[in-house]
Amino acid sequence: MQTPSDKALVPFVSVDHMMGLVHHIGLPRVLTELATCIEDDFRRWPHFDKTPRVASHSDVGVIELMPTSDGDLYGFKYVNGHPGNMRTGLQTVTAFGMLARVDNGYPVLLSEMTLLTAIRTAATSAMAARHLAPAGATTMAMIGNGAQSEFQCLAMQAICGISHVRLYDIDPAATAKAKRNLAGSGLQVTACTTPQEAILGAQIITTCTADKQYATILTDNMVGAGVHINAIGGDCPGKTELHPDILRRSAIFVEYPEQTRIEGEIQQLAPDHPVTELWQVITGQAQGRRDARQITLFDSVGFAIEDFSALRYIRDRIKGTAFFQPLDLLADPDDPRDLFGMLMRAAPGKAA
Amino acid sequence: MQTPSDKALVPFVSVDHMMGLVHHIGLPRVLTELATCIEDDFRRWPHFDKTPRVASHSDVGVIELMPTSDGDLYGFKYVNGHPGNMRTGLQTVTAFGMLARVDNGYPVLLSEMTLLTAIRTAATSAMAARHLAPAGATTMAMIGNGAQSEFQCLAMQAICGISHVRLYDIDPAATAKAKRNLAGSGLQVTACTTPQEAILGAQIITTCTADKQYATILTDNMVGAGVHINAIGGDCPGKTELHPDILRRSAIFVEYPEQTRIEGEIQQLAPDHPVTELWQVITGQAQGRRDARQITLFDSVGFAIEDFSALRYIRDRIKGTAFFQPLDLLADPDDPRDLFGMLMRAAPGKAA
Repeated sequence: MQTPSDKALVPFVSVDHMMGLVHHIGLPRVLTELATCIEDDFRRWPHFDKTPRVASHSDVGVIELMPTSDGDLYGFKYVNGHPGNMRTGLQTVTAFGMLARVDNGYPVLLSEMTLLTAIRTAATSAMAARHLAPAGATTMAMIGNGAQSEFQCLAMQAICGISHVRLYDIDPAATAKAKRNLAGSGLQVTACTTPQEAILGAQIITTCTADKQYATILTDNMVGAGVHINAIGGDCPGKTELHPDILRRSAIFVEYPEQTRIEGEIQQLAPDHPVTELWQVITGQAQGRRDARQITLFDSVGFAIEDFSALRYIRDRIKGTAFFQPLDLLADPDDPRDLFGMLMRAAPGKAA
Repeated sequence: MQTPSDKALVPFVSVDHMMGLVHHIGLPRVLTELATCIEDDFRRWPHFDKTPRVASHSDVGVIELMPTSDGDLYGFKYVNGHPGNMRTGLQTVTAFGMLARVDNGYPVLLSEMTLLTAIRTAATSAMAARHLAPAGATTMAMIGNGAQSEFQCLAMQAICGISHVRLYDIDPAATAKAKRNLAGSGLQVTACTTPQEAILGAQIITTCTADKQYATILTDNMVGAGVHINAIGGDCPGKTELHPDILRRSAIFVEYPEQTRIEGEIQQLAPDHPVTELWQVITGQAQGRRDARQITLFDSVGFAIEDFSALRYIRDRIKGTAFFQPLDLLADPDDPRDLFGMLMRAAPGKAA
């Protein structure tokens, strides 16, 4: 074989590498650093090329491409969402992503993003809660104890100072799993048997369930004054978690309205229902929480800029480590017009 | 490290593997088989989920995502186009792509597509020429002798029976390179010093130049009755190769009008100028070439279904070969809800 040139090789972060990198840095530190990275990119929101994700829907799920660019780097994520996968032993969500240089189009990073999406989603939730949750919040209700739940709890601990989480899932085995995984985290963990029990005393309520249907995880009478709701499970058309009356009582914050109105909880409301863009809260252009009694709602569906931030973070963090491998992804002939000659020189029996 | 399960591993075809596979099968046979594969997918055109590619333009180039799905498989390609890259020793176009199952969203193939795009573009051109070129065509003019040119010549030879190619490029070194590469192909090759000379006696004229600007590679008086023009270099807004008067004298065939009107030669014409979709010619729903004197023009910009066909072909053809490697791209915990547990068990010092 011909040895590919450096230009042909793209650093690839496998699942195993990603796990190694996270342990090398430490998960709480990864969550904290990534939240800062995402906040930095939200601060320069107007600089980004933004578009709603490109979704391909089927009866059983969705496959999406989420591209964005800041003019220097271009990034995209491939991600699927198939709620029925769990029944056959598969992940509901899997993902991978890529960063490339805008000036020449060459990829500079290819990475697994199943784990990284879980981490960036938790970091985004906690970053938003840092801006929106009531001061001195100590307790979070975690409704839905699937693959995302432990990351949410640890991000809220590391970034917002939450010390107590109250877990509920329709499946007690999921709650038991999350409780087991959080042992040793320093969090006080309470397993609950109803959503009503879970939200007792919670200043932050996180909902993260996976059914692809209109569901009412929280009803109106369950939500008292002053809480912050972090709603991350309603993230595609026809998939919601909150009763519309809760939405009408809340100050609603979103990532990218054009996408959230299609996919988020607010798909249940009129298309002109007022919402605030989170980046404007971060830059001080819009008000966040008004007072201690207001209900704030982060109607989060996940946006391409968060993935861009995560890929950018990983690209910086793998430097000088062994947590990647060079991948022979790009053809790179000596003469760029001589792609055919490169192929011919690779014929069996030819000298390299 | 934990050994990833089969579900976590995605077959990856590197550039080196792709070159090995092409030599293993033989390039003329790859071109012929792939043309059949593309034609089969054009035949079932209405079954596909179609959307214009998602383009991110900058001053110096474009980065695109090209997704499509036939309901069973979903595919997309990442591709850039940067005409200035050549000056710094980089490829104008690089690409990679992926196939996934629609029913669970899991990727089943990741592949280099820089080489594969060159091959599929040539196979598509020849497949279209088989339907549109005048009967008994033996000579092709190849205007633009860059990375795509030799593939075009060999595809027209293997699929349309072309025996003579007449090469022209603004840079004689490119022509010399193509002529050298085609020695031994069985094609009669004539190097020409002007476009006028190149088209002498040609029944097929292929234009494939790379400037990102309105250019006039062919002027009206150069194009006589009965030729088939295969225009593949005009493929983004502001980038064309033919004088509009040629277009007005031609019967124009396109892949996907919604995309071609933005990117193809016909961006120079009124938005309602009549065009025929190639798939309808293939299925017999529309007429192809009407008579021996008609000028036919395939205004080709490249469409996602061609990449889908190419990925599908590669997926089938690597079976039972060593021309791929399993890539640890997907997180696959034993319990799909226990992504966090999988991460924890990967901590250094933990038994797998």
